[in-house]
Amino acid sequence: MKLDETERLETFSDGVMAVIITIMAFNVKPPAGSAFTDLHEVLPRLLVYVLSFVVVGIYWNNHHQLLRSADRMNASVMWANLFLLFWLSLLPIVTDWVGSFPNRALPAAAYGMISLGAGFGYWLLVRTIIRANGRSSHVAQAVGSDLKGNLSVGLYAAGTALAFVNRVASYALYAAVALMWIIPDRRLTWTNPGQSPPPAQSGGDSLD
Amino acid sequence: MKLDETERLETFSDGVMAVIITIMAFNVKPPAGSAFTDLHEVLPRLLVYVLSFVVVGIYWNNHHQLLRSADRMNASVMWANLFLLFWLSLLPIVTDWVGSFPNRALPAAAYGMISLGAGFGYWLLVRTIIRANGRSSHVAQAVGSDLKGNLSVGLYAAGTALAFVNRVASYALYAAVALMWIIPDRRLTWTNPGQSPPPAQSGGDSLD
Amino acid sequence: MKLDETERLETFSDGVMAVIITIMAFNVKPPAGSAFTDLHEVLPRLLVYVLSFVVVGIYWNNHHQLLRSADRMNASVMWANLFLLFWLSLLPIVTDWVGSFPNRALPAAAYGMISLGAGFGYWLLVRTIIRANGRSSHVAQAVGSDLKGNLSVGLYAAGTALAFVNRVASYALYAAVALMWIIPDRRLTWTNPGQSPPPAQSGGDSLD
Amino acid sequence: MKLDETERLETFSDGVMAVIITIMAFNVKPPAGSAFTDLHEVLPRLLVYVLSFVVVGIYWNNHHQLLRSADRMNASVMWANLFLLFWLSLLPIVTDWVGSFPNRALPAAAYGMISLGAGFGYWLLVRTIIRANGRSSHVAQAVGSDLKGNLSVGLYAAGTALAFVNRVASYALYAAVALMWIIPDRRLTWTNPGQSPPPAQSGGDSLD
Repeated sequence: MKLDETERLETFSDGVMAVIITIMAFNVKPPAGSAFTDLHEVLPRLLVYVLSFVVVGIYWNNHHQLLRSADRMNASVMWANLFLLFWLSLLPIVTDWVGSFPNRALPAAAYGMISLGAGFGYWLLVRTIIRANGRSSHVAQAVGSDLKGNLSVGLYAAGTALAFVNRVASYALYAAVALMWIIPDRRLTWTNPGQSPPPAQSGGDSLD
Repeated sequence: MKLDETERLETFSDGVMAVIITIMAFNVKPPAGSAFTDLHEVLPRLLVYVLSFVVVGIYWNNHHQLLRSADRMNASVMWANLFLLFWLSLLPIVTDWVGSFPNRALPAAAYGMISLGAGFGYWLLVRTIIRANGRSSHVAQAVGSDLKGNLSVGLYAAGTALAFVNRVASYALYAAVALMWIIPDRRLTWTNPGQSPPPAQSGGDSLD
Repeated sequence: MKLDETERLETFSDGVMAVIITIMAFNVKPPAGSAFTDLHEVLPRLLVYVLSFVVVGIYWNNHHQLLRSADRMNASVMWANLFLLFWLSLLPIVTDWVGSFPNRALPAAAYGMISLGAGFGYWLLVRTIIRANGRSSHVAQAVGSDLKGNLSVGLYAAGTALAFVNRVASYALYAAVALMWIIPDRRLTWTNPGQSPPPAQSGGDSLD
Repeated sequence: MKLDETERLETFSDGVMAVIITIMAFNVKPPAGSAFTDLHEVLPRLLVYVLSFVVVGIYWNNHHQLLRSADRMNASVMWANLFLLFWLSLLPIVTDWVGSFPNRALPAAAYGMISLGAGFGYWLLVRTIIRANGRSSHVAQAVGSDLKGNLSVGLYAAGTALAFVNRVASYALYAAVALMWIIPDRRLTWTNPGQSPPPAQSGGDSLD
């Protein structure tokens, strides 16, 4: 038995994202001492890590649902996917940088730029997959107008510019993008094929 | 062929846990010198690593059995799972910290807090999965009253508080939680579907 | 259900390549300061990372297609695959080295040598797989004369020698090999078995 | 569709081994300078890495074949497998240590001890799997008398003791164990189920 082409792409991407998460956590590093005051240095690193963890979690979830509804793949899809993974692989670096200099403009702007790159990479992946599967395909209808995708790219661009004016506003914008993606996802429900139907109490729009 | 939704969640979680284990081992670091006395500095790091390795091993095992008996997934399950992985991803940091300061209160308490977070994350994941699959589902019956899950959360909270009084008692409590999970697991036996029935000499409660 | 032997080889190789990519990104490291001038030190590291990322992406893609068209495996194939992974696992080290000394001959030559090793490893893997599957097999016909494989090995050897004369020419040659692999790949299209036929607008040579 | 229990154990173990390999390569580290003389410090690290890479490659291969012929799993098998992974996860540390002090007795002995632990872990895994599957099972017959497994444990113990007398002899013994495992494996051939029969020119004992 062999896995689907889309399955293979997912497994590889999942692997990269799993390592990205753990490398980011590794970069938080334990405090240099064992007193309460030593926790101060760790706190900003921990907070940015939480944000980056959530961002990767969102990508992992959406990436999975996107590929799941796609039937066809080509080399453009594969390179668009690698392009997205490239930007995500830079996330540990900017997370580390922001953790070291949480009050400086350039790291905050760099965080926005890498997020923008990843957002654009995902936007590109969606378009490439739709082109490979056709406008009337399942995946094209599942994606719809991709309003959130477009909005995210715009908000990350705004956050990057804002970093040179006000760091807090910039970070708040990045966090807002993450929240925008988390909340509506909660309505979706999946059932494994060939399994029993959903029990009555868990209402929700079935995706698959 | 595509994998189940639950299978995908498992693969990703397995990837994260595999990297966590190796990163924790990486943090042990070889001794700075090559004399017997240089082993002293490594010993506490090695001991905490053993504990953390066993903890991750237990989560990997239970996580696997939990998802295996689940048929339905939704976004809440996915986020509860990421919440658990978040706490587990902090385990290498506290393991490293305890290894550096094995006799201090704060690192010992932090180890308990991260363990508590992971224990609560698992407790939450169990509840979210049962809610998605229904109270009469296979997974709800397999979990039962989840006495051990509730007890673990309580013991980790106690160990965290105890760390400010007595480090040894605190570590003993953490190790006791691990032992509590290892021992009864040994009775379970699984058979692959479509395989020959178990031979007579390996008695044990079949799970699947 | 069990996966194919070739599938298992792919999954393991995918795992190694996923970690290689993330370790290389980890080695880029954030700037030491937060001023624009601090970006200078990061730029060469980032550029070599882009090259190495693309190289691993190409190997991942070709490795996947090679194993996909293979039906039979033996221990020689497995060791040839490990030989390829060995050279790829050294890529983060030379990427790091070139990033530290972008204008020196030896790191540039070492980058070429490791690339040559990986290129030879892939060349060997192709031959070993064809030998295991037979000259008339699907995989032997899919590979064809393997002109690009032979050419890559030659170009990497030339780039290694050139490093002692002109670094820029050497790096340009390494980048040219990568480009040679990316461009023609874009015409291929895959369809998952049992799925709907490709829509009319996405013309391309179907591989599977 | 869900994967087999044994498949899941394999995937997790493969993930751990993939990260171990890459972490060991990461520990080799590039030379501190860019002159030929700077290569001296890297050479011993590179050589031990080659040995450790081959050792992990052998475990990956044998582990895969062992689990492939097993039908039944239980919690003892799972913990025996984690016990093996524990020792393998310490391999990067001793590899790093030997690379730093190639001429010292203690690191050479530690390398032997960790190898001995892994060898014993594998020996234990084989026994636990046979116990779970029964003496007349496919896996019990595939393993046979496990002469090589017993011999390896003995040779690693001898190498550990020898390290305090002669380092070169000790390393030679470790390398000899690796060679003993590589050579005879080359006769085996696997075919994917449902595929065409092996072509005539690749004679070899079919395993599956």
